[in-house]
Amino acid sequence: MNAVKVGLLGLGTVGGGTATVLLKNAAEIARRAGRDIKVDFAATLDLGMAKQLGLGDDVRLTTDAFEVVNDPEVEIVVELIGGYSPARELVLQAIDNGKHVVTANKALIALHGAEIFARAEEKQVMVGFEAAVAGGIPIIKAIREGLAANRIQWIAGIINGTGNFILTEMRDKGRDFAEVLKEAQQLGYAEADPTFDVEGIDAAHKLTILGSLAFGMPLNFDATYTEGISKVSQLDVQYAGELGYRIKHLGITRRTDKGIELRVHPTLIPERRLIANVDGVMNAVLVQGDAVGPTLYYGAGAGDLPTASAVVADIVDVVRYMAIDHEHRVPVMGFKTAAIEEMPILPMEDVETGFYLRMKAVDRPGVLAEITRILSEQEISIEAFLQKEPSEGETEVNIIMLTHKVIEGRMNTALAQIEALDVITEKVTRIRWESLK
Amino acid sequence: MNAVKVGLLGLGTVGGGTATVLLKNAAEIARRAGRDIKVDFAATLDLGMAKQLGLGDDVRLTTDAFEVVNDPEVEIVVELIGGYSPARELVLQAIDNGKHVVTANKALIALHGAEIFARAEEKQVMVGFEAAVAGGIPIIKAIREGLAANRIQWIAGIINGTGNFILTEMRDKGRDFAEVLKEAQQLGYAEADPTFDVEGIDAAHKLTILGSLAFGMPLNFDATYTEGISKVSQLDVQYAGELGYRIKHLGITRRTDKGIELRVHPTLIPERRLIANVDGVMNAVLVQGDAVGPTLYYGAGAGDLPTASAVVADIVDVVRYMAIDHEHRVPVMGFKTAAIEEMPILPMEDVETGFYLRMKAVDRPGVLAEITRILSEQEISIEAFLQKEPSEGETEVNIIMLTHKVIEGRMNTALAQIEALDVITEKVTRIRWESLK
Repeated sequence: MNAVKVGLLGLGTVGGGTATVLLKNAAEIARRAGRDIKVDFAATLDLGMAKQLGLGDDVRLTTDAFEVVNDPEVEIVVELIGGYSPARELVLQAIDNGKHVVTANKALIALHGAEIFARAEEKQVMVGFEAAVAGGIPIIKAIREGLAANRIQWIAGIINGTGNFILTEMRDKGRDFAEVLKEAQQLGYAEADPTFDVEGIDAAHKLTILGSLAFGMPLNFDATYTEGISKVSQLDVQYAGELGYRIKHLGITRRTDKGIELRVHPTLIPERRLIANVDGVMNAVLVQGDAVGPTLYYGAGAGDLPTASAVVADIVDVVRYMAIDHEHRVPVMGFKTAAIEEMPILPMEDVETGFYLRMKAVDRPGVLAEITRILSEQEISIEAFLQKEPSEGETEVNIIMLTHKVIEGRMNTALAQIEALDVITEKVTRIRWESLK
Repeated sequence: MNAVKVGLLGLGTVGGGTATVLLKNAAEIARRAGRDIKVDFAATLDLGMAKQLGLGDDVRLTTDAFEVVNDPEVEIVVELIGGYSPARELVLQAIDNGKHVVTANKALIALHGAEIFARAEEKQVMVGFEAAVAGGIPIIKAIREGLAANRIQWIAGIINGTGNFILTEMRDKGRDFAEVLKEAQQLGYAEADPTFDVEGIDAAHKLTILGSLAFGMPLNFDATYTEGISKVSQLDVQYAGELGYRIKHLGITRRTDKGIELRVHPTLIPERRLIANVDGVMNAVLVQGDAVGPTLYYGAGAGDLPTASAVVADIVDVVRYMAIDHEHRVPVMGFKTAAIEEMPILPMEDVETGFYLRMKAVDRPGVLAEITRILSEQEISIEAFLQKEPSEGETEVNIIMLTHKVIEGRMNTALAQIEALDVITEKVTRIRWESLK
């Protein structure tokens, strides 16, 4: 049988990795897929890159990606350009041309997934996006197929490698956020503009996708609460450690009686949890199903070859199922289109978590009594407490508390009152904590 | 569309769990599968069990499992009886009758998989066995599909929950093997006859399956080296800890230039590795692919509902693909049948690992010199060393060494010579160690 012809959009990090994996593992992949899979046409702004990657002379090259999506020979279009535009236009055009699409583009899926999936359904083609969440970890397949028996209860994931690298370095080496960020940029882990990574937007894209996969609801990027790690201080990393916790940047989605939680923020987790020990640039996703209980998936969340691993797995799936009726294929989000349901997204004020609080207070009798009175009025109880004497040259103490679970709205009320006390000299630091049980 | 009719063989732990999940999550499963899935006929020796599980009056019951596999209405037979016979006969009969089969039976697949898969290929039906390895963790799907882009390099797994529970308790509570085993039996984690669990046979069944899935080779249970944990002593758990290691019972399969390793044995692993922190009855499988790097999959390896999670996921897969041509379905072992290749299995003498050694020696000058001379003659170098003074009432010291990697045959030669020394008073304890890098 003829080789399946793939059109690659982009020969950058992931595109180059994909070309490399398809070449290097061609024999092993054919043993699995039952057909050869070949890059037939590639769009790149750097035509010399194709040579460098070892793509043969028989691979057609262009600088115009639309040529690839409009080419009659190409059967699968692999979009690895990233960003919203022209990725969206290219993908839609490919679908309109009846081609199957594989993409690693989380921003595209999180924001334009609904449009893309609807068009693909209409044209009866597949859209694979395993590489869009947690790089090489086959987490989309695990949730969509491997855990199909379960009502998923919640998912919590370390889904941004750059953020995890920074928090790990801050903890292991006692360094400050800004310093580690700079190093991450030098190492190529973080972009020149690190906003997407450190402010949680990248993680929010991925969490949006995980939430829809878990519960069978539309993609809700706009409703995802997003808080980055740029305000996490060395002090908090240390105190969290003293209390037996690690700070991780988590994406969390949870089904509750009142609605679905969708939130990305720094989170204290007990240090004995496996996911608390996922360090450096590695990713991990914890999925709690009602039948299976907790399961965890760990691996490289970025990088050329790991991401290509997911891209090529999607290509193999497309090759396996390209000849069958669309209705028998796994639905793109794991649920039949007709079964996708709008679900209310819980506003952050109604989300219940524990809190780590750090307050700077004048060292004077009665301060603690005032704070605890305010907390108890909001029915917030304290699980652990540390008081740190002033460091040299300072006159204020640091009061650190870990509270039991409370609705965020109540915590907001309590903190407003605490911050209004004249003994409290700066804004209270608060980081949510989760037991992940 | 009519509900898909499932025939359940066995309503014990996993059978009961499967019935429960299919009932409890019927709505969610139908949202995913696009059809209702219903237990139509169940074979059980305890007819009262069906009522207890809440199966309705419309579910037919029998004490003769062959009635189910021969029933014309049943479309998917789910074998949850376990053991070799009559499970083998039932599964083959079901296949001959053109029914798809789902099973949780690792012993059956490890020993009779070749026969069963050949018959299924002939009859163009599917055989699902996700639940046979690592319970609820979707590890079969991850390797077979999620990592399809990779040449798998090695797999190392904690794939027996009972064994992991025992080793965890020995470490956490300082208790002895025999004592913890007894407790595990009382808790229902270990069978009255614990041989399969503690002597590694259960793990070897699972590893056999993982090896074939990883490399696309026939099932090789007979060639799997199997060593249990019954000889692991409290002393070794402690000394391993002092050296920065944990002892885990691992199944390891690795591709080397000289052949495939297939081995189950207690193993020291560095305590900072994620898998070293997988405790209690939980399972975890570490898979190293050439593109993706290391990935880890963690969850409950046993139990009614977790195992049912995997069984029902297989049922959903069967429902999704039952109407398509057999050639387009994922091959049962991930590789096309024609691409399955015999590969040489490396004899244990040729396997290379590091070793933990514990020697009891008369406390006399020159002993260490003799031991190190013998080791160095076999080109075995020492990475770490501990000497423990005699405990009260004893006159011998315990010498503990961690060696660099060496071919097992050389270690055998060295140990025979060491044990022949008259200062060495008992058989040397040796436990392999792996960096898992």
